[in-house]
Amino acid sequence: MAGETFDPWGSELLSDYEHLFSEFGMQRVDEKVLRRVLNANRLWRRGIVFAHRDFDKWLSAFERKEGVACMSGIKPSSEFHLGSKLTAEEMIFFQKEFNAKVFYSIADLECYADNGIPLAESAKTAVSNLADMLALGLSEKNCFVWKQSEEKRVMNLAYVFARKTTMNTLKALYGERNIGLYFSVLTQAGDILLPQLQDFGGAKNVVVPVGVDQDPHIRFTRDIAAKFEAEYGFKLPAATFHKFFRSLSGESKMSKRDALGVITLSDDADSLKKKVSRAFTGGRATVEEQKRLGGEWKKCVVYELCLFHFEEDDKELEERQRRCASGEISCGECKKEVIEKIQKWMKAHQEKKKKLVPKAEKMLAGD
Amino acid sequence: MAGETFDPWGSELLSDYEHLFSEFGMQRVDEKVLRRVLNANRLWRRGIVFAHRDFDKWLSAFERKEGVACMSGIKPSSEFHLGSKLTAEEMIFFQKEFNAKVFYSIADLECYADNGIPLAESAKTAVSNLADMLALGLSEKNCFVWKQSEEKRVMNLAYVFARKTTMNTLKALYGERNIGLYFSVLTQAGDILLPQLQDFGGAKNVVVPVGVDQDPHIRFTRDIAAKFEAEYGFKLPAATFHKFFRSLSGESKMSKRDALGVITLSDDADSLKKKVSRAFTGGRATVEEQKRLGGEWKKCVVYELCLFHFEEDDKELEERQRRCASGEISCGECKKEVIEKIQKWMKAHQEKKKKLVPKAEKMLAGD
Repeated sequence: MAGETFDPWGSELLSDYEHLFSEFGMQRVDEKVLRRVLNANRLWRRGIVFAHRDFDKWLSAFERKEGVACMSGIKPSSEFHLGSKLTAEEMIFFQKEFNAKVFYSIADLECYADNGIPLAESAKTAVSNLADMLALGLSEKNCFVWKQSEEKRVMNLAYVFARKTTMNTLKALYGERNIGLYFSVLTQAGDILLPQLQDFGGAKNVVVPVGVDQDPHIRFTRDIAAKFEAEYGFKLPAATFHKFFRSLSGESKMSKRDALGVITLSDDADSLKKKVSRAFTGGRATVEEQKRLGGEWKKCVVYELCLFHFEEDDKELEERQRRCASGEISCGECKKEVIEKIQKWMKAHQEKKKKLVPKAEKMLAGD
Repeated sequence: MAGETFDPWGSELLSDYEHLFSEFGMQRVDEKVLRRVLNANRLWRRGIVFAHRDFDKWLSAFERKEGVACMSGIKPSSEFHLGSKLTAEEMIFFQKEFNAKVFYSIADLECYADNGIPLAESAKTAVSNLADMLALGLSEKNCFVWKQSEEKRVMNLAYVFARKTTMNTLKALYGERNIGLYFSVLTQAGDILLPQLQDFGGAKNVVVPVGVDQDPHIRFTRDIAAKFEAEYGFKLPAATFHKFFRSLSGESKMSKRDALGVITLSDDADSLKKKVSRAFTGGRATVEEQKRLGGEWKKCVVYELCLFHFEEDDKELEERQRRCASGEISCGECKKEVIEKIQKWMKAHQEKKKKLVPKAEKMLAGD
């Protein structure tokens, strides 16, 4: 069952992406799609954004010069980590390259339902998360940010959608869950469809960039959009899916639930050093073997840190592959270089972010 | 099971009230309680308000000169009928005699979940319902009225309460229902506990006057209040319960679902005449028998119209009993008198109400 393969609230690693296309009807981000993605950044060039639903239609709308939008959100349960950074960068990319209006939900009600974090507490985390978004390049101009608990239109939609949602549908998609989590699914559908309310100009093409584990939410919301098409005129939201970024242990997806395996955008130089030093690599059992056989960069989380996040230059990335595979560099040396690279990136990011906290506070001040 | 006996969304008649005290732990409105109810009106004197939970504690708080409050609501699915009038009169009584602050919820989200009526439509009905309340004597001064869909604090509480609510609890209380109705139960708990939020001065003694079929909501909300006592400081809400007012057919409780058996506060003189003329009575098979044996006023819905609603004077009521039981009056004659009584009451009410519609509109205008 779908509910067993995908768990939007879990941290399992989905190593085989192939069946998503055959079993779940996802579409590939292939050459044909890529050609239409303007100024494709590393996420697109390197196949990190690897699958989609109806993103080709979204591109067509853009090419027809229709206004397009992009929607996603964050559960404000902890500091931004490298997984949330992927979604953020996708949104910022759509905003910049496609002039897409960004709709960004702070999923504080889901955060309470799933993690039990009181709204007052998650409100503080939300400010930090949004400041990260701004530092990553989000423009506040073409952008609407809300907290679920403050946006009554979203909550109202959840109640509306509940009327055409059976328990069986929810069980099939998510397994046996408590009523709070079920209702947060309906609330999230409200988040995703909010941009299409009359208050925001009505029906439009919206793409939702998410990690691949969030697909149940996408499928559910697309069904809801179809069911309420007559009443609200919704278009089915499109989606793009990125691969998981693994935990530093290499074992599961990077998740807020795994504090030791996670790199957050608030980590200081020391903790970055400690964490990356202990990360899982593709190194051999002995120095001698490493020199003779070379490292296995395809298995290496440190390599993935560069691939997914910290090496923009494709040539440099290939060079790191080569040095590893040839045995030219040891894991220790490689880690040292990558740690420096990350520390440098983080320092710049955190300085930028610090200045943007007041702006984030203001954007979230609400009524 | 509780869910089978009580159905807050159904219209069955609960003819035997006795088991409520033994099985469900309700308390009786006995002489001891009645002595403490100041200026008891017909609802109290005639045993229509017959049961309670912790209402004695509420009275004690009042007697200690603590401020007390009263909370109830209406599902704005149709015009006020004689059943909703009972709840309204209880609230107005508490406001007037105990200086209780009235909290009144327009349950438009439940109305959508249960009846599928869109919010825009129920908003119009809500104005009419509130105008009826005002015409019945509600003072807008010591009063807070809200729509569920507009009151984010209520919706937020629903999500909070969901976290400590299992599906099994909901199933045991309400049977198998859809997720919308389950969530409207949580929303109603939010309504009932709203008066105890800090925004309204924190924990206080609140009584909830309802029809006896609403007890599952009361029990559920009292459990929720206990579970969140540490976090919110809630006191368990008290409740008073009134007997059902029957459908004019005598067969089920008066309900919006049964258009022919229901008297609404908007009925005109003609339809009142038609409806009451066809009402179920305690009359005998023939005129001769009626004269010989007398009528059975205990079975008669027309008598109940006087008992519950349209005869304030206890002596007059007894006189009607006597005339019926002695065979002095026929059902036709009695109905004629009662129809005139009701028409007169309605005319006065509707004239009063008409003038109060703009005030109701203003109170519900919201943000």
